[in-house]
Amino acid sequence: MGRIITLTTDFGLADEFVGVMKGVILAVEPTALLVDLSHQIIAHDIRQAAFLLAGAWRFFPSGTIHLAVVDPGVGTARRLVLLETGGQFFLAPDNGLLSLVLGAGLLTRAWLVANSDLFPGPVSTTFQGRDILAPVAARLAAGLNPELVGPALEVVELVHLTDLEPLVNYQAGTISGQVEQIDRFGNLVTNISPALLRELFGIGLDGLVISCGQGTIRGLVGTYSDVEVGSVAAVRGGRGFLELVVNQGRAADYFQVGKGEPVVVRVN
Amino acid sequence: MGRIITLTTDFGLADEFVGVMKGVILAVEPTALLVDLSHQIIAHDIRQAAFLLAGAWRFFPSGTIHLAVVDPGVGTARRLVLLETGGQFFLAPDNGLLSLVLGAGLLTRAWLVANSDLFPGPVSTTFQGRDILAPVAARLAAGLNPELVGPALEVVELVHLTDLEPLVNYQAGTISGQVEQIDRFGNLVTNISPALLRELFGIGLDGLVISCGQGTIRGLVGTYSDVEVGSVAAVRGGRGFLELVVNQGRAADYFQVGKGEPVVVRVN
Amino acid sequence: MGRIITLTTDFGLADEFVGVMKGVILAVEPTALLVDLSHQIIAHDIRQAAFLLAGAWRFFPSGTIHLAVVDPGVGTARRLVLLETGGQFFLAPDNGLLSLVLGAGLLTRAWLVANSDLFPGPVSTTFQGRDILAPVAARLAAGLNPELVGPALEVVELVHLTDLEPLVNYQAGTISGQVEQIDRFGNLVTNISPALLRELFGIGLDGLVISCGQGTIRGLVGTYSDVEVGSVAAVRGGRGFLELVVNQGRAADYFQVGKGEPVVVRVN
Repeated sequence: MGRIITLTTDFGLADEFVGVMKGVILAVEPTALLVDLSHQIIAHDIRQAAFLLAGAWRFFPSGTIHLAVVDPGVGTARRLVLLETGGQFFLAPDNGLLSLVLGAGLLTRAWLVANSDLFPGPVSTTFQGRDILAPVAARLAAGLNPELVGPALEVVELVHLTDLEPLVNYQAGTISGQVEQIDRFGNLVTNISPALLRELFGIGLDGLVISCGQGTIRGLVGTYSDVEVGSVAAVRGGRGFLELVVNQGRAADYFQVGKGEPVVVRVN
Repeated sequence: MGRIITLTTDFGLADEFVGVMKGVILAVEPTALLVDLSHQIIAHDIRQAAFLLAGAWRFFPSGTIHLAVVDPGVGTARRLVLLETGGQFFLAPDNGLLSLVLGAGLLTRAWLVANSDLFPGPVSTTFQGRDILAPVAARLAAGLNPELVGPALEVVELVHLTDLEPLVNYQAGTISGQVEQIDRFGNLVTNISPALLRELFGIGLDGLVISCGQGTIRGLVGTYSDVEVGSVAAVRGGRGFLELVVNQGRAADYFQVGKGEPVVVRVN
Repeated sequence: MGRIITLTTDFGLADEFVGVMKGVILAVEPTALLVDLSHQIIAHDIRQAAFLLAGAWRFFPSGTIHLAVVDPGVGTARRLVLLETGGQFFLAPDNGLLSLVLGAGLLTRAWLVANSDLFPGPVSTTFQGRDILAPVAARLAAGLNPELVGPALEVVELVHLTDLEPLVNYQAGTISGQVEQIDRFGNLVTNISPALLRELFGIGLDGLVISCGQGTIRGLVGTYSDVEVGSVAAVRGGRGFLELVVNQGRAADYFQVGKGEPVVVRVN
């Protein structure tokens, strides 16, 4: 069987954009297994795509190719890049979208996507996901040596968004992050990982106080239903980050906050 | 070729949840054929998922595995179960989601999903669709004997929602159901099946009077366009249940009703 | 590997309709490669589907089967048809949905979808995409001779919407089209192709003046970022038609117009 190619874009599903990319991929490599991660990234929201990909890629098998297009600079001199890390591949514009994959601390190789022999037709200036990244992903799925995609790049040369990680104040005993995503259940997904909390403050997380908007939560629980229906709690969410939740309710309504709202964790 | 695994959830498509489940499945069984039924079940609306699955599963071939996750009790003691009925398999929380599959009156076997050897990694308390059901579905698609999933259960032990079926009043000659779904065309999909009407009242359905909100319809027609554009009618819908429709219009607007609105069918 | 079947409908993704069609297809031909183009066509908007398909099909390989269902006349005497053009196949109601495929000027053969031996079960009057088109698409993917689908039709007999193309006034030096689609980025996608502009007015497009609502744009640029962030421009969009765009903004907001708004291109 073929290899998995995941797709992450801000294209939505109403237009033909995603389907056309799939046509281009399958024309080159019909055994590719296509998996949509999301096409509902907010238009041009590179940060949202970075977190979504960071929460998803480790659940895919070795050899998977992740193609991500949130590309406000399409058609400009911004580069398209290929990464190989942890046995998986990532194709995206070099605009910070892959910051958290790079930040995982794994050995990573990078190449410029430059070999136009891999592009089947003329390259437009408005839809390079279709004209460049889709066929290159398909060729990789077919077994292409990644070194043939273009010249090697130094990982440190890549655009790396530096404000994605929460700020740690050791003296004050606080971690300051923010709400990165409000999921369909109204859960507030933050950029603060329980692993980081443990590393900084030790195993016992019961004493932590989490502040967001007008609300405050003490300690983490295991799951939604460890609190009463309608009550608020903090859990380690499916994405691996701290989430503020309401059992069978919407934390976003409870806290009356939106994406970007500051979240502060404090040792009491 | 592999076997079909369908997915039905309340996860939406904006987040990575569905894509991650697919990654977990394909990592175990890359020949699985993945089909989305819906990821837009209203959050925690077990009843909606039950009807959607009931209207869909008979169109799939023998051996299909239906994975459904609408799971407000995730992480609690609620069970995860496997059913085999009519040659197909169903994996879901034991919360009533499979009530209508059980209600189809076919010989059914059931097992507790309990064999942790089938789970590839640590099991979270917030996303067991990914950590338990997805890999078990993949193993079944790969040919796993269902008896290895866990101990057999008696079907009568399973949670069975008893208020999904319409109420029949033989003396009064009425069937009282409700609007279960408003589809994208504004059609009002009820829980009353024409088969039930026929069984109770004989073949001739022309004399029936259907009441919903302020509206009344007499008799069933074959299709939307059997009435004038903009006129209301009752048809046997694609899901197999009675639907109130407006030819090239929105019955939901015409009747000014929503999900849950009572629908009464009366012999006149 | 199997052949690609694309799906274009106005069914949305909340209901089980699309998933059920896929089940019917895979039951007949499990090697089919299913690609969604869009299921968010506005209900009954044949014109929107015609443009979406016109912008998509050329990116698919030879042998692809495009199944499109926007079918306000379902269950009436309107015909279901099969086209073969440019090495690809199209299955749809004969209601004008395929007008732009027909308008591509390629040698085209057409057949009535009539051979009920190809339909696996009873044919409903409300969901013929599932009961007729899906199994026929699957049989074609499995290699069925298209001549076995039904009697040949003359292409000129097919319903052809005549108002999709822009109007050219040679004397006045104008082309009058309209906004056909507002994409997720707020770009205004028109029905005017730069190829037509070039054919009529020569290679130099810099002097063109494009009017839409209260706005006016002079000339075409290569891509969004050829103008300042927040500025308006006209580009050749990914679909191959003229688009009015705002670099990293929403042209629909800038122009304050909706679908159907007239767009006039004038030689100055």
